Amino acid sequence: MNYYISKILKNLSYDEALVKVKEELQKEGFGVLTEIDVKDTLKNKINVDFKRYKILGACNPHLAYEALQSEDKIGALLPCNVIVEEHENGEIEVSAIDPIPTMGILDNPDVKGVATTAQDKLSRVIKNM
Amino acid sequence: MNYYISKILKNLSYDEALVKVKEELQKEGFGVLTEIDVKDTLKNKINVDFKRYKILGACNPHLAYEALQSEDKIGALLPCNVIVEEHENGEIEVSAIDPIPTMGILDNPDVKGVATTAQDKLSRVIKNM
Repeated sequence: MNYYISKILKNLSYDEALVKVKEELQKEGFGVLTEIDVKDTLKNKINVDFKRYKILGACNPHLAYEALQSEDKIGALLPCNVIVEEHENGEIEVSAIDPIPTMGILDNPDVKGVATTAQDKLSRVIKNM
Repeated sequence: MNYYISKILKNLSYDEALVKVKEELQKEGFGVLTEIDVKDTLKNKINVDFKRYKILGACNPHLAYEALQSEDKIGALLPCNVIVEEHENGEIEVSAIDPIPTMGILDNPDVKGVATTAQDKLSRVIKNM
């Protein structure tokens, strides 16, 4: 089962992709609460070289609140991650977690609706990139 | 399948638990890269009241690097989240994601070893709280 939704971007640089994905997330009600620069982190912590790769932690507070009311430990699976990476051939790819497979490990049907809504929204974000 | 490892703390306040869990994570090679205050976020964004609940994004850079080399999109499932929450009865609970079920949605046996190592480490963190 695929656990992410992704797209190779043809007309955007890495930095432009970062700006654009935040705009598209905002249109779907997601704010970016966290941002991990994987390249910088790996360089600083263990001195290895890695491609440009950022993990944005996106949160739609209405959906998060709904999910938390049904499943107290859902925070272990939040926020919804979005990756912006630059492949070695220079291509930029943006990928969002698909919440359906990850939420599927919960044995809680009440979360399915909110996961489906989040999936719809994140699919539109990636489609509109 | 349970997707987290947790413990109710008897002798620590919420703030003490936050300090202690960061110390225990550090002993296992995890730094805390992100910290989401769910209570504050929900209050500020959608004006709802919620209990004290923080999501710490913990990363062991050696394990993360190993996982990224086997599975490019593993960043969608990183970092490893640790929740510190205060229940309505005043009890403090700390919970870490169990990486095995979440990594199980990947169809990649190469990631199993690193997920098992991460599970061992996070289990010790929770046990030592």
